[in-house]
Amino acid sequence: MVTTPTYLTGDQAAITEFIDKFDTFLFDCDGVLWSGDHIFEGVPETIAMLRSKGKRTVFVTNNSTKSRSEYLKKLTGLGIPCEVDDIFGSSYSAAIYIARILKMPEGKSKVYVIGESGIEQELASEGVPYLGGTDPEYRRDITPEDFKAIADGSMLDPEVGVVLCGLDFHINYLKLAVGMHYLKRGAIFLATNVDSTLPMHHDFFLGAGSVHVPLVNAIGKQPLALGKPSQAMMDAVEGKFQLDRARTVMIGDRLNTDIKFGVEGKLGGTLHVATGVNQKADWEKEDPIAVPAFHADKLSDLRLGE
Amino acid sequence: MVTTPTYLTGDQAAITEFIDKFDTFLFDCDGVLWSGDHIFEGVPETIAMLRSKGKRTVFVTNNSTKSRSEYLKKLTGLGIPCEVDDIFGSSYSAAIYIARILKMPEGKSKVYVIGESGIEQELASEGVPYLGGTDPEYRRDITPEDFKAIADGSMLDPEVGVVLCGLDFHINYLKLAVGMHYLKRGAIFLATNVDSTLPMHHDFFLGAGSVHVPLVNAIGKQPLALGKPSQAMMDAVEGKFQLDRARTVMIGDRLNTDIKFGVEGKLGGTLHVATGVNQKADWEKEDPIAVPAFHADKLSDLRLGE
Repeated sequence: MVTTPTYLTGDQAAITEFIDKFDTFLFDCDGVLWSGDHIFEGVPETIAMLRSKGKRTVFVTNNSTKSRSEYLKKLTGLGIPCEVDDIFGSSYSAAIYIARILKMPEGKSKVYVIGESGIEQELASEGVPYLGGTDPEYRRDITPEDFKAIADGSMLDPEVGVVLCGLDFHINYLKLAVGMHYLKRGAIFLATNVDSTLPMHHDFFLGAGSVHVPLVNAIGKQPLALGKPSQAMMDAVEGKFQLDRARTVMIGDRLNTDIKFGVEGKLGGTLHVATGVNQKADWEKEDPIAVPAFHADKLSDLRLGE
Repeated sequence: MVTTPTYLTGDQAAITEFIDKFDTFLFDCDGVLWSGDHIFEGVPETIAMLRSKGKRTVFVTNNSTKSRSEYLKKLTGLGIPCEVDDIFGSSYSAAIYIARILKMPEGKSKVYVIGESGIEQELASEGVPYLGGTDPEYRRDITPEDFKAIADGSMLDPEVGVVLCGLDFHINYLKLAVGMHYLKRGAIFLATNVDSTLPMHHDFFLGAGSVHVPLVNAIGKQPLALGKPSQAMMDAVEGKFQLDRARTVMIGDRLNTDIKFGVEGKLGGTLHVATGVNQKADWEKEDPIAVPAFHADKLSDLRLGE
């Protein structure tokens, strides 16, 4: 059964009812609060308004390049009121999964990282040993000697039991070749998220899913993704924030991550904003990936409920 | 109708009959003649034997990293008798397609290259202007300024009408981001080939298909591939060598490129050798991609026909 989403933009009564319906507001970041480093107008005021009404505001992002503390800097730097505990990223979700749920055996406990420092910091905070990532030894061209050393295994660490992929702006053939060969030797294939694109500068660039898809293509296996819409992430968010799902809403721009995440997590509601990847036409077409309960042109349209 | 392939290894009568059946022998290289820089035993002698019998031997490779003249150096350096006209690579096939078939309009005639010098040399030999490729300006980390200049178009050349992707050992986020944005602006998406893996050092690494699959994932479009099994390549080979398809055999290690290429091209025969990607089990399973007419453990098994 699909019902038509309630359109909030310009409808003060509907907005007030929407705000009253929820205690906890989960926000996607890229495409909702900002595009790249460009913050959308009225966003800090909207968050501040919700907090002034006693609402809990939590930022749930699939962007794995930043750790929670780096995200805190970005949010507060853009004028968004926030504490570090209000932030839940896919790197943190992945680190928790590896450390507390996967519990790799002794001798296979290391994680080979394709990604930026956000992943490394979150793994370190959970005491998980890692290699790859931002290590300059992997940020270089592959050499004929590397091909040989990867094939014969002398360049591979036998203690690696997991390959964890996130968004990596320094992706190269060497990193991919090493990751491919850990996977060929049986390492578990995890991803912080599988977003194909990344909203930036009012445009789109390659997302984490497009950075690690070479491994999927070469190996023929899909990773277990730990960001939205994975319910492993919802369980972790619920556990951390002790939230009442019926009184929680997920706000996002993507149907296949944010809205699906909220719908499958049986939250009280989902709100789609049209400032990012998907538009109204995407859920109005046949067999949409997910349909939101509410929609608005932009997040700051909620300010009418002030 | 699927018939069981004739097994040649050790069967002198079958091998003699096989050799007599054909005038032109098309060889795949990686996985048939060599793995990376390791030539398989007896290969030069096998080629020499066929030539001594008056056979035409042609090397048809999807490897786009080398030009024909570079390939000639590799082949003769490994002791394989060969002239430059005996070589047909996917870079050459792509250059011919762009220059003679696609014929881009004035003002959209440039090709943005993701790949190595082989592609550049073949484009230059056909008089096609290009950018990207091995230019050091693209072999570096992406900067915040690049994101902006790609999004606003100031970093993009408005004369680019084609994005051509091959195997690129220097792949990085910047190259992919630029390619993605040319495609978003309507450039034609071509690939030298879509092999997911590359045989090297008795093992596999990432092939051209795995290097450009980020663009497929981010854009949601597949490239037109000009290497095997594309019949655009078969037409070009036939045109160049004036061969009689009924008296031509394709020899390769991959079902989805080499064998499919020969079967769909209605050649007189196909020979699978088990020194590369696929094995007997791959065509014996249900719904195989392609079934060869002949198979042998290795190319040099043909020497029994001497």
